[in-house]
Amino acid sequence: MVGGGQGAFIGAVHRMAAALDGQIELVCGAFSSDAEKSRLSGEELFLPPERVYGSYDQMITSENELLDGERMDIVSVVTPNFLHFDPTVKALKSGFHVILDKPMTFDLEEALALKQIVKETGLEFALTHTYTGYPMVKQAREMIRNNELGNIRKIYVEYPQGWLSTKLEDTGQKQADWRTDPMRSGMGGCLGDIGTHAANIAEYVSGLKIRSIMSNVNIVVEGRLLDDDFDTFIRYDNGASGTISASQVLAGAENGLKIIIHGEKGGIEWRHREPNSLVLRRPGKPESVIRSGVDFEYLAPITKKHCRTPSGHPEGFIEAFANIYRNFALTVRSRIFDETLDPDFNDFPGIEDGVTGMLFIEKAIESSKKGHQWVDFKI
Amino acid sequence: MVGGGQGAFIGAVHRMAAALDGQIELVCGAFSSDAEKSRLSGEELFLPPERVYGSYDQMITSENELLDGERMDIVSVVTPNFLHFDPTVKALKSGFHVILDKPMTFDLEEALALKQIVKETGLEFALTHTYTGYPMVKQAREMIRNNELGNIRKIYVEYPQGWLSTKLEDTGQKQADWRTDPMRSGMGGCLGDIGTHAANIAEYVSGLKIRSIMSNVNIVVEGRLLDDDFDTFIRYDNGASGTISASQVLAGAENGLKIIIHGEKGGIEWRHREPNSLVLRRPGKPESVIRSGVDFEYLAPITKKHCRTPSGHPEGFIEAFANIYRNFALTVRSRIFDETLDPDFNDFPGIEDGVTGMLFIEKAIESSKKGHQWVDFKI
Amino acid sequence: MVGGGQGAFIGAVHRMAAALDGQIELVCGAFSSDAEKSRLSGEELFLPPERVYGSYDQMITSENELLDGERMDIVSVVTPNFLHFDPTVKALKSGFHVILDKPMTFDLEEALALKQIVKETGLEFALTHTYTGYPMVKQAREMIRNNELGNIRKIYVEYPQGWLSTKLEDTGQKQADWRTDPMRSGMGGCLGDIGTHAANIAEYVSGLKIRSIMSNVNIVVEGRLLDDDFDTFIRYDNGASGTISASQVLAGAENGLKIIIHGEKGGIEWRHREPNSLVLRRPGKPESVIRSGVDFEYLAPITKKHCRTPSGHPEGFIEAFANIYRNFALTVRSRIFDETLDPDFNDFPGIEDGVTGMLFIEKAIESSKKGHQWVDFKI
Amino acid sequence: MVGGGQGAFIGAVHRMAAALDGQIELVCGAFSSDAEKSRLSGEELFLPPERVYGSYDQMITSENELLDGERMDIVSVVTPNFLHFDPTVKALKSGFHVILDKPMTFDLEEALALKQIVKETGLEFALTHTYTGYPMVKQAREMIRNNELGNIRKIYVEYPQGWLSTKLEDTGQKQADWRTDPMRSGMGGCLGDIGTHAANIAEYVSGLKIRSIMSNVNIVVEGRLLDDDFDTFIRYDNGASGTISASQVLAGAENGLKIIIHGEKGGIEWRHREPNSLVLRRPGKPESVIRSGVDFEYLAPITKKHCRTPSGHPEGFIEAFANIYRNFALTVRSRIFDETLDPDFNDFPGIEDGVTGMLFIEKAIESSKKGHQWVDFKI
Repeated sequence: MVGGGQGAFIGAVHRMAAALDGQIELVCGAFSSDAEKSRLSGEELFLPPERVYGSYDQMITSENELLDGERMDIVSVVTPNFLHFDPTVKALKSGFHVILDKPMTFDLEEALALKQIVKETGLEFALTHTYTGYPMVKQAREMIRNNELGNIRKIYVEYPQGWLSTKLEDTGQKQADWRTDPMRSGMGGCLGDIGTHAANIAEYVSGLKIRSIMSNVNIVVEGRLLDDDFDTFIRYDNGASGTISASQVLAGAENGLKIIIHGEKGGIEWRHREPNSLVLRRPGKPESVIRSGVDFEYLAPITKKHCRTPSGHPEGFIEAFANIYRNFALTVRSRIFDETLDPDFNDFPGIEDGVTGMLFIEKAIESSKKGHQWVDFKI
Repeated sequence: MVGGGQGAFIGAVHRMAAALDGQIELVCGAFSSDAEKSRLSGEELFLPPERVYGSYDQMITSENELLDGERMDIVSVVTPNFLHFDPTVKALKSGFHVILDKPMTFDLEEALALKQIVKETGLEFALTHTYTGYPMVKQAREMIRNNELGNIRKIYVEYPQGWLSTKLEDTGQKQADWRTDPMRSGMGGCLGDIGTHAANIAEYVSGLKIRSIMSNVNIVVEGRLLDDDFDTFIRYDNGASGTISASQVLAGAENGLKIIIHGEKGGIEWRHREPNSLVLRRPGKPESVIRSGVDFEYLAPITKKHCRTPSGHPEGFIEAFANIYRNFALTVRSRIFDETLDPDFNDFPGIEDGVTGMLFIEKAIESSKKGHQWVDFKI
Repeated sequence: MVGGGQGAFIGAVHRMAAALDGQIELVCGAFSSDAEKSRLSGEELFLPPERVYGSYDQMITSENELLDGERMDIVSVVTPNFLHFDPTVKALKSGFHVILDKPMTFDLEEALALKQIVKETGLEFALTHTYTGYPMVKQAREMIRNNELGNIRKIYVEYPQGWLSTKLEDTGQKQADWRTDPMRSGMGGCLGDIGTHAANIAEYVSGLKIRSIMSNVNIVVEGRLLDDDFDTFIRYDNGASGTISASQVLAGAENGLKIIIHGEKGGIEWRHREPNSLVLRRPGKPESVIRSGVDFEYLAPITKKHCRTPSGHPEGFIEAFANIYRNFALTVRSRIFDETLDPDFNDFPGIEDGVTGMLFIEKAIESSKKGHQWVDFKI
Repeated sequence: MVGGGQGAFIGAVHRMAAALDGQIELVCGAFSSDAEKSRLSGEELFLPPERVYGSYDQMITSENELLDGERMDIVSVVTPNFLHFDPTVKALKSGFHVILDKPMTFDLEEALALKQIVKETGLEFALTHTYTGYPMVKQAREMIRNNELGNIRKIYVEYPQGWLSTKLEDTGQKQADWRTDPMRSGMGGCLGDIGTHAANIAEYVSGLKIRSIMSNVNIVVEGRLLDDDFDTFIRYDNGASGTISASQVLAGAENGLKIIIHGEKGGIEWRHREPNSLVLRRPGKPESVIRSGVDFEYLAPITKKHCRTPSGHPEGFIEAFANIYRNFALTVRSRIFDETLDPDFNDFPGIEDGVTGMLFIEKAIESSKKGHQWVDFKI
């Protein structure tokens, strides 16, 4: 693991997600650029001191010298955005598969370069767009794939947050600090942090691709350096329209991602707040509330494979995260041991999702800067 | 009553709303332009045959000749849009107060003319933007007025419907027929039918005024003559941004108006589906679910005056509608009998709301036609 | 109308319910045993002074002397329990149909006497167990009738309230005052006020009859004279078991009636808080949320006939109440005018429900007094 | 780990729960009484073959011979009920701390014997009553402890399930097979499987003890050997009354534990379906929805310590389970390393809860057999 030392938020989630299914063992880490902090973090995690490194360069070099079967297989990169590209590239070039936090890189240029490197190395690469790991999100995608909603017409995605409703970055709060800093976060604030999730889930569930975008990107909290709120109109490749809105300044809002998709034959609604329910609406029929659970025969096979508990036993964010880790681990493992892989497990966000995310940030800003024009969604 | 004969939808709702509080008695009507149909409708409503008229012209003339105290006091106009202006103007010019269904007129020009006539006659005029009649909508407005959310930053309004997801107008369905016909509905389809409600509630609750609008107006169902789906970005007069989206082609969707408003200190969410609850979110506090009920001392005085039942006894659409009728009746009555009127009852949508609604339609279409530019929201 | 003068709660609801559908006109009343209060109440209701009476005796006598067609047709009795029997009997004996608030009488003896009189006079009689007026409650009953849940196994009814959680009767609050007074309320407090509703909805929806009962009846608030909380085990005539619990001392609780019924093939859940939704659960299928609305073809015909608005336009307590009044009015009217009556409208609680309610009170108390034994539910 | 081999349900949940926080490592197991099956299960779990045992006797003996620090510290027993006592006692007597699935033992006699042994060995013992591991359940307990609801008056617990609504045990389904078999499950069916959870959460949250019980215990599915449905009246030691109902034959029901507690000053409601929300109701105030999240300062300190994610990131069943494992691990660790333990972590169900559970089963059956009398809840 690169990053995720004491005080970090997402590192601990990555570790729980990786541990949950017993497919991945944390064997080493460079948890901080501060060697002492890295050491302490490793100690807390019961790692042998010799495998807790003071830098990711050192980690990659040292691990590379270990024997097959002892050496780490996967590098998990959980640093702030500006530190995504370098460790990822180095790990890939040294032959390690990589799982990386989103947004993928600092900018689109890096994203395209990384895409090239992933292609060249032929290694596995995953991006932790967590929301696509939820069973009910996969169920929605399957239903749309199976044409249960007919041709898609409309997609609404709303991603409200409230934690940046004051100038939190001035208080030294670590998460706010780097996320609002253009030098570490990249050109997108809210766009990068949660907008990319919103765009990703829209494409993942609908199976459509964004064709063009028009945006209204705002800095609401005075003095902030990056956007903290935006609305967009989206046009998808099949002609469907929609909106993606996200904000981090909605005082009092939780982390409340919602997606509504309607086609000619019906619509679905999924809300992160109740992630184990998926509402299906069809003309002339009662609403259906599709519920997660390994024992529900009516669920799509891929859905059931991403549930861990029987119906009535809620799963949450860590389990969704773990689905990405588990699938990535099984995919890597199938390569290492030359095993057949159930294609339902070869399902995790990857390099293309990462490029789309960076494109989303850049195009949204471009549209807003150009006086809110429609902008083609292409590189 | 003008319009609302057999087979009409909203006429019956108007009658129930008017009857609910015992303040208004239906005394006469011109229920249809078909005299026989009007006669039959009047019979069903237990009206004396001599006060069931074959046309509104006849009704206004005849009623005018009746004695004080016997003559109708208020004319309720519930016809399709193209038939709003003429009976309303004639009623006003004959000295009758008017309550009119939305959208106010066929076009903005008529709206401005009507505004002038209302001003000249000095009579009372109400527009049935029902949603502002809900107690919890009034509560939200009061809380914002009292600065409980701080300076408003963001307003999301979503108004999904699904009933026009097929080309229902081709089946002869009466409601679809005129609502999708530019000659009877005006230039707005979805914009006029539900978009005006959405814009109205946004302004009513927030206390803000729309300053500019950018829109993406769509005709989704092939061959339809008027818009059936739109998204807008809105800029309000205090600088707040937001979106208003509405659609009538979301197959399977009910009539699901939702509004979310956030300010610097918190946010509210109201959904028509559960109209008796208002969710309040504030940083660092549990969510509050404010509930309707005459017995809840914590509600604003104006809220309680618009509840009819104690807590735990749900009220609905007809009651909200009735609040507009009741307030209008009390306002008219206070004029007739020169009584003092509690200002909390002098609260119903009027001529200005009607002009705003027509402006909303015209400006949304203008923005969309101009390649989705920002358009100033002024006459 | 007998009772329901200024300051009363349920009288106003009865009037709104009666007015809603334009089938019933309030023509006279004895609104209070205090003649002046009755007069003032009548004035507020725009009644002609000569038809506002100082007592129900006077009202019945005077109305009786009026001409056919001018005379009232129906007497609505909305007084406290101890004043149910006398005006009802007198009205019936004078040839008036009666609609009466629940619980039916002061005690079981009166209930049986009333049953005899209703039988002898052959007149129409309704009891306002409001909850059976909700469209979704009727839908649940139809589904069970059509064997959609299979043989019924279990019925849970919970009716929490909190308004009597302190000794409110000592403050002079009118509703608390008579409801906790054995001389005016009868032998049941919570049992009579809301327990009878709970028992009624259980039998109505399930189509089953209570066969035996075991109870735990409590007085929680010290010094109170009547029960304010109870739990019961119920055995139904088909062998199904269940519980009925109600309480008026659950501080903070709204008026939260809930019913859950499960059979061999599935179960339903209805909550008064969201009365327009009925949840259906079946093994191996997604949950269904059946929703009210005149436009929902999937609803049972009887359900649709008890909706007034299209889907997505919530109805509430007053509309449910009005369904009882409307059905009663149509039933009476069909007798007066010798019209055919749609049997779906001949659906309102009546004398048998009233007897069952009084039995429920008496048997619950008997069981509790006998050390919580099973008691047969028969007269 | 004892039990939990291939095909088992709860074993996998135990393993995920143990792994989640990185405090516990699975080092060995006797996963099945079938040695080959145990071996295969161990292989799947990446255990070294020499630490996968064919029986728990062998496991305990062999592990005992390992060196300090290499030897297992904790034994997790996840077998069917009849196999709880023996491995637990043997493990304890060999000096291992034990975490055991519920219900604690086969019968009350075993429970009392185990209590004695736990006392004698002085070792740590935990029982996985999962529901008490939820942060919002702990929050409810803290609020009651801090007198926020005042003196407790009423406790309703409802635990519906539907999976045994047919005679599933006849199909060979493994979970149904042993759970309905008196020889393996003990004298309680539904009572033991979920009734003990319901009783446990009632006592845990309220801080009260059951004083007496009256029950109606049913076998609904013909030919079943153990109860599959029951209702009880409960009297608590402070005089509060309540009901505990559970059923496994509610066709279509999920695993839907709910608890409602009201005191003189307010009430709480928690539903397993939305475990991250706790509803608080107080007279004269809006409802509060208290939400989980490490970042919510308003939560009790103990609550926050049992959250892993910030607000808006739902946690579920596995996390609740993991809270028990984590707390147990920290407690054991504080003994081993003689560290100070935060008392908020010394919070997991133990031997007393286990005895109460067995008492609940026996007393409920006793009451039902005695013609549904009140039975004192003591040994």
